[in-house]
Amino acid sequence: MTIAPPVERKLIEQIVREIILAQVGGPPGKPNLVVSVSARHVHLTDQDVETLFGPGHKLTVAKDLYQDGFFAAEETVMVVGPRRRMLPAVRILGPTRPESQVELAFTDGISLGIDLPVRASGVIDGTPGCVLVGPKGVVELKKGAIRAERHVHMGPSDAAFYGVKDKDRMNLRVASGCGVVFNQLLVRVGKNIKLEVHLDTDEGNACDIDHASSVELIKV
Amino acid sequence: MTIAPPVERKLIEQIVREIILAQVGGPPGKPNLVVSVSARHVHLTDQDVETLFGPGHKLTVAKDLYQDGFFAAEETVMVVGPRRRMLPAVRILGPTRPESQVELAFTDGISLGIDLPVRASGVIDGTPGCVLVGPKGVVELKKGAIRAERHVHMGPSDAAFYGVKDKDRMNLRVASGCGVVFNQLLVRVGKNIKLEVHLDTDEGNACDIDHASSVELIKV
Repeated sequence: MTIAPPVERKLIEQIVREIILAQVGGPPGKPNLVVSVSARHVHLTDQDVETLFGPGHKLTVAKDLYQDGFFAAEETVMVVGPRRRMLPAVRILGPTRPESQVELAFTDGISLGIDLPVRASGVIDGTPGCVLVGPKGVVELKKGAIRAERHVHMGPSDAAFYGVKDKDRMNLRVASGCGVVFNQLLVRVGKNIKLEVHLDTDEGNACDIDHASSVELIKV
Repeated sequence: MTIAPPVERKLIEQIVREIILAQVGGPPGKPNLVVSVSARHVHLTDQDVETLFGPGHKLTVAKDLYQDGFFAAEETVMVVGPRRRMLPAVRILGPTRPESQVELAFTDGISLGIDLPVRASGVIDGTPGCVLVGPKGVVELKKGAIRAERHVHMGPSDAAFYGVKDKDRMNLRVASGCGVVFNQLLVRVGKNIKLEVHLDTDEGNACDIDHASSVELIKV
């Protein structure tokens, strides 16, 4: 069921695992549901890319992500927590953004000694910071270390199919040997966006998403 | 809501986090439900304790666990995976057992390069092994590396309250900012056993169990 290039498991883990499950037996027109597991990653501003990797540096695409225009970069950075514990090589996702942000699972946060708030991507006021170390420089983020709130991206036709609108909440049922229902996924509707759930590695591992027999979005 | 001694968070994480939530508003006699998060840990035979820590060595109690007679030991071992990746200090739980066993979360297994099967504790035939390194010796386990299947321990009166029997399945609903329903917990009924759910760190982190507002066992 796993759609992934034949690269080493650890590399996939470092980027994004995507699980695509055909919705067999559903009503006509039911959209295919993709559940992606985002491992810890960093979003950077253009300025922070240059500080970490050198003047004029641009991110290099290593792997296109499921949503058009987004990619995992070749570049990684060291993420250092407040007690000088660190993760040596955290993947950068592109394109660059107006604010830098570090998305970690709670397991990572405990390891680093960062008490992560759960936030929607981009909503980082009042969040803890951390230090990023690249080959050419260091960035001290004053804020931006979060656990991304679980969410589902979709286009207008998907939203119409499920009968939901932007900022609604839905549940996700994962059937596997370790089945789980995740409550209250944030719905994010946008034009030209494909239907895709984003979980973090704690969530993906809790339900053994790699071996899921079915996934289902449920309106609440 | 967290009942824990005032020790450093990492230490608690290394042992067992216990979340006790009073069941307010329930029917009379409803038992208190304890949800414990077991971080990665090792069970050892007497022989393996002696190999790793020296002839005649006995495990030292560091912290009593919720179930009477069980404890987290002072001793830790290095766990080495097949690609020589390792976890430097994995806690040993006592007392000793007839077979040694290493219980890891999927996050740990991915880090070590071990594809963990999900097993009930003690059911380890056909499971992968790993290498344990202690201060006085090395043990090469031929089997015993598992992800413990999520489960709930209870006594006969708890089983009567919920209307379940040994080896039945129940669901666990966790309400939090990242709420989850865990399906199909294995019910294990025994005399003189306290009501206690065991999750691993992936599961506990997926639902932010440390900040849960309520937990509920549901008969299926």
